[in-house]
Amino acid sequence: MKNKKRIRDYGINIGKLKTGNRNSITDVAGVKVGHTTLDNKEIKTGVTVITPHQGNMFKEKLMAASHVINGFGKSMGTIQINELGTLETPIVLTNTLSIGVAADALIEYMLENNDDIGKTTGTVNPIVCECNDGYLNDIRGSHVKREHIFKAFDSISDDVKEGAVGAGTGMSCYGLKGGIGTSSRVINIDDNEYTIGILVLSNFGRQQDFIMDGVKVGQKICEIEDKEDNERDKGSIIMILATDIPMTSRQLKRISKRTTIGLNRTGSYMGNGSGEVVIAFSTANKIDHYDKNATIKMEVFNEVKIDEVFRAVGEATEEAILNSLISSETTYGRDGHFRKGLKEYISLNKNG
Amino acid sequence: MKNKKRIRDYGINIGKLKTGNRNSITDVAGVKVGHTTLDNKEIKTGVTVITPHQGNMFKEKLMAASHVINGFGKSMGTIQINELGTLETPIVLTNTLSIGVAADALIEYMLENNDDIGKTTGTVNPIVCECNDGYLNDIRGSHVKREHIFKAFDSISDDVKEGAVGAGTGMSCYGLKGGIGTSSRVINIDDNEYTIGILVLSNFGRQQDFIMDGVKVGQKICEIEDKEDNERDKGSIIMILATDIPMTSRQLKRISKRTTIGLNRTGSYMGNGSGEVVIAFSTANKIDHYDKNATIKMEVFNEVKIDEVFRAVGEATEEAILNSLISSETTYGRDGHFRKGLKEYISLNKNG
Amino acid sequence: MKNKKRIRDYGINIGKLKTGNRNSITDVAGVKVGHTTLDNKEIKTGVTVITPHQGNMFKEKLMAASHVINGFGKSMGTIQINELGTLETPIVLTNTLSIGVAADALIEYMLENNDDIGKTTGTVNPIVCECNDGYLNDIRGSHVKREHIFKAFDSISDDVKEGAVGAGTGMSCYGLKGGIGTSSRVINIDDNEYTIGILVLSNFGRQQDFIMDGVKVGQKICEIEDKEDNERDKGSIIMILATDIPMTSRQLKRISKRTTIGLNRTGSYMGNGSGEVVIAFSTANKIDHYDKNATIKMEVFNEVKIDEVFRAVGEATEEAILNSLISSETTYGRDGHFRKGLKEYISLNKNG
Amino acid sequence: MKNKKRIRDYGINIGKLKTGNRNSITDVAGVKVGHTTLDNKEIKTGVTVITPHQGNMFKEKLMAASHVINGFGKSMGTIQINELGTLETPIVLTNTLSIGVAADALIEYMLENNDDIGKTTGTVNPIVCECNDGYLNDIRGSHVKREHIFKAFDSISDDVKEGAVGAGTGMSCYGLKGGIGTSSRVINIDDNEYTIGILVLSNFGRQQDFIMDGVKVGQKICEIEDKEDNERDKGSIIMILATDIPMTSRQLKRISKRTTIGLNRTGSYMGNGSGEVVIAFSTANKIDHYDKNATIKMEVFNEVKIDEVFRAVGEATEEAILNSLISSETTYGRDGHFRKGLKEYISLNKNG
Repeated sequence: MKNKKRIRDYGINIGKLKTGNRNSITDVAGVKVGHTTLDNKEIKTGVTVITPHQGNMFKEKLMAASHVINGFGKSMGTIQINELGTLETPIVLTNTLSIGVAADALIEYMLENNDDIGKTTGTVNPIVCECNDGYLNDIRGSHVKREHIFKAFDSISDDVKEGAVGAGTGMSCYGLKGGIGTSSRVINIDDNEYTIGILVLSNFGRQQDFIMDGVKVGQKICEIEDKEDNERDKGSIIMILATDIPMTSRQLKRISKRTTIGLNRTGSYMGNGSGEVVIAFSTANKIDHYDKNATIKMEVFNEVKIDEVFRAVGEATEEAILNSLISSETTYGRDGHFRKGLKEYISLNKNG
Repeated sequence: MKNKKRIRDYGINIGKLKTGNRNSITDVAGVKVGHTTLDNKEIKTGVTVITPHQGNMFKEKLMAASHVINGFGKSMGTIQINELGTLETPIVLTNTLSIGVAADALIEYMLENNDDIGKTTGTVNPIVCECNDGYLNDIRGSHVKREHIFKAFDSISDDVKEGAVGAGTGMSCYGLKGGIGTSSRVINIDDNEYTIGILVLSNFGRQQDFIMDGVKVGQKICEIEDKEDNERDKGSIIMILATDIPMTSRQLKRISKRTTIGLNRTGSYMGNGSGEVVIAFSTANKIDHYDKNATIKMEVFNEVKIDEVFRAVGEATEEAILNSLISSETTYGRDGHFRKGLKEYISLNKNG
Repeated sequence: MKNKKRIRDYGINIGKLKTGNRNSITDVAGVKVGHTTLDNKEIKTGVTVITPHQGNMFKEKLMAASHVINGFGKSMGTIQINELGTLETPIVLTNTLSIGVAADALIEYMLENNDDIGKTTGTVNPIVCECNDGYLNDIRGSHVKREHIFKAFDSISDDVKEGAVGAGTGMSCYGLKGGIGTSSRVINIDDNEYTIGILVLSNFGRQQDFIMDGVKVGQKICEIEDKEDNERDKGSIIMILATDIPMTSRQLKRISKRTTIGLNRTGSYMGNGSGEVVIAFSTANKIDHYDKNATIKMEVFNEVKIDEVFRAVGEATEEAILNSLISSETTYGRDGHFRKGLKEYISLNKNG
Repeated sequence: MKNKKRIRDYGINIGKLKTGNRNSITDVAGVKVGHTTLDNKEIKTGVTVITPHQGNMFKEKLMAASHVINGFGKSMGTIQINELGTLETPIVLTNTLSIGVAADALIEYMLENNDDIGKTTGTVNPIVCECNDGYLNDIRGSHVKREHIFKAFDSISDDVKEGAVGAGTGMSCYGLKGGIGTSSRVINIDDNEYTIGILVLSNFGRQQDFIMDGVKVGQKICEIEDKEDNERDKGSIIMILATDIPMTSRQLKRISKRTTIGLNRTGSYMGNGSGEVVIAFSTANKIDHYDKNATIKMEVFNEVKIDEVFRAVGEATEEAILNSLISSETTYGRDGHFRKGLKEYISLNKNG
């Protein structure tokens, strides 16, 4: 991340709220991100893991929500999040055809860290999300193996690498090279400072539709390249929202829905073939798996104040998508397919 | 209620949990119920109101949920309950074609008690639920007027009248006379005593399907009467669940779904033409409309303990439906239509 | 409409698809719109009706869907649309506190046109949607009466009046005068021409956030007026989508979700206090209320082609919102409150 | 199946509708079922596959729906079924911790049969459902391997083996041995004969609650065994509904909800820890993956006739659960755990 220029480095500042220190999902204390990148000729894929806190996620669950914007997707684990409103594993991102192997590895990871699962307590709900990187990647080759998930866990860090890395290695976005992007916002409510962070795996959209902070850059690219954009949107986007605001799962669901603000403002029409899924969690209240009391005392966010959080989600989502584009290098994949990096067109960012 | 025999008076005891003192939704402290009954020749209809607490509902909202079992119904106000998880008015029950006039009266009632609604604060979300009493009642005559809603509020009491009263005056259930029924259960969790109460407006089901505590009474009635049951289920049931357990709206939604236990065990197939809607609320946490703090401290029920609440809901629902039937007298309505009371068949309640 | 300039008259053309003849929801054959406007000092309110076809809606139902974007709203009738996927009445729009009286009038209208409702067939599901016009209007005065709904039905026409008319008389949008707006798109799929139309009742958003075709006009207004925009979003938007594409209710639900594209691109963050509800219907397949056959033969849209419809919905929604703003005159309402028309700021529509 | 007695062989006939020839999900033409059973000391698990038709499921998709009764479960693939209303793979059932390996194998199976997936067309949505057999099975040992899924496909047949076979090998139900059960109903609508079939993987419920056709057999078992039933419901039930009625996904969703009738009548309270998921499909309309026309002509079921289908689903579900219990032999698993077969208590099936 250090050496890469991000969208703000080009003078493009989305919205009005201030960002966190790293302008990253890891500005929410405790959140870390790791990647395994598989990049070798027609192999353009990988794994990204998000660990919401650094304790034992199964023993100390977090409040969570999932939201499906468009359901042409294969993400796993949302049924239980919807019912119980909790998250009990880290989140793994990979390509669509590798969800089985990723789930299997995540289950093994959880079993290793919890002797009682499946023995004296219940089972575990693994969260695996995916996009289809098959345009650049030999996705039928099933190149992601179990060890790649473990390796991603070994590499977790506060410093989130963006662009064509991890699960983002082979992704496409607006006909350009997409992948991993992140951003954050910090807001003040009654003298309390709260952070909202997002990480996206971007893989959606048609080139002609791309908008950068109000400027129709996609149209300009199509004109310059003198090409007709006749691809269908067969993409996806996975968005992981983190916050330290003490939100309930219902409140987290509400903020999840505001990711469409960023999505739509960069040009998306949320195409038929696009799997668009949000997972949101709050690090504020930890739910003890073994708690035996009848009731739990907790602080809950006063919903009347939620407008500022909606704004933060909208802004951070838009910026994270732009970060995923600007930090991705031009990439050549299978069968002569390639995607250019947004950097090659960044000069088009002015009106008129 | 005092003079009427209820289902337990006939030796039929549903489930194993103990009931509250009144075996009524009003066992949940603060809940009261009022009725206006319109019973005159072909006019068989009315209004029932449930007041969840006796303060100002708009200023002190309750956590709430709604659940639609079958949506062939016209109940109002569920969109906002689903979004915000709160209830800010009493609940009004009436016949299907009177929801407009009932909503209008409930809005006026709320405006009278809150100077600021629509002026310096937002508007208000009236909850009106309904069943179609058109088999017995001249429903096209629109006999429910605004004053009948106000009169029902004037009559609220801890002592819930059951059977052919209030909104239940003209309802039919399993080809018998249905209407208002109530029941409650008391459970102990970690030395805390909690109450779950339910009030039903029953208006559903085919005669042949009626089951009483496992005994197929409906089949026996059809045999005795030597009739073929060829009516379609064009009914409905409204179920109002109350509890003093400090549940979130998500938890209340989960317990709402367990009302099907009682519904199915009395013989329902949840027919196409039946509007089956649950509204659930908890009296434990009051949400201050004017609260300005960033967070609210609250006690929340430990979900691991919820199985006993599911059981209580299932049992109380089954018993409330039976109470609505056994306390309804045989009723003659429009165009020679009539419904017999279950009492006339109560001797059929044995196997073999 | 004839004399009013619309957003295209100012050179602002949203998207690339061509519009229908009238650029209106009434480009979908059979759809008509009527208004009753109540505009007298502090009375700024009214009624708008949309009639989806000109036969008997109860006897010939249309496939339909509803979608809640943000549920701080009181719209009625969505439970049954969700369950059965059909629409059986015209749609009435009015202010929030008049939904009761509007429902009551719509029920009477349906009873008058259908002798059998509530007698030999079931009841009817009235659709009433609302926004809160209380900033300009004396909403507590309950100035909408039953006759105003009937009068709106009497005035239906292909020629949709926009701006501060009908239900839009007292609405506010982005701190400006909002109200009724409409737009349409025509698309070709396999040599078939299809139309998608939308009518909005706009009443949402904060001034600082308003964007016009990518230009941050709202910020400029705030700078010029040297004011801080500290209002909360207590608004709403109702969006009625019509199409002649033979879509199922599931497909109509999917296109309903694409209205956020237009909403977000004009600057909305979908605020907490905003009731944002979509009702969508297709005029292609009529469902006979009395059909007795086991199966019905129908044509159904091939979903693989739906991307173009998503685009049409996004474009038309954005344009309809802009039309609602540009065609609304500056309006003075209760207690000295006023909202300026967008026309007063239209010169701000350039970047730089 | 031939040698095993089913619940009807004991004179217990659920409901009034007639069954199909095999009284099995395979009475719906084209549906087949296969099992791989892993039964060796503490290994009590396996795989069951349902193939909805015998062509290429990806190229000829079926209309489908999913419904979550209680979401403490990890089933995969429901997001896309909910969005698109179609099923494009066979359905695989296995134990909770083997969903990753099962998904991986099912993806490979689909790739082998479809050259274009992930290359020139999109990806594929594998459907894997699960229950937790950890009470009897060494579930942490991950004994299900990829070849077990392939082997189950090789064994598909019209003749469905029930009880402790396939995915049902280690399941528990009402404190007894559960597993695979099936049943069907045949109904006539306007001289057309239609079939509804169900297959269940039963693994839920507390012993004291078990009811057999109205008789509280579970209570009697607890009395005889002089034991207190203090286990929590940590189970699940997966229910696969098949029909040849030309239903849309919305209609299939509605009939899916009627499975609670069978569930509740056998005694379930739908416990907190129980993952209860329904997948329903219709074999009547096949959706061509490559269809290029704007519209598709199809026959759709007239929803007014749906009550008889609801009844069929309720009856078949109840009977399939009883079949899963009666056809399961007493089983000894890990750590001395065992579950008795219902056969050992079948004499308790009389009232009084």
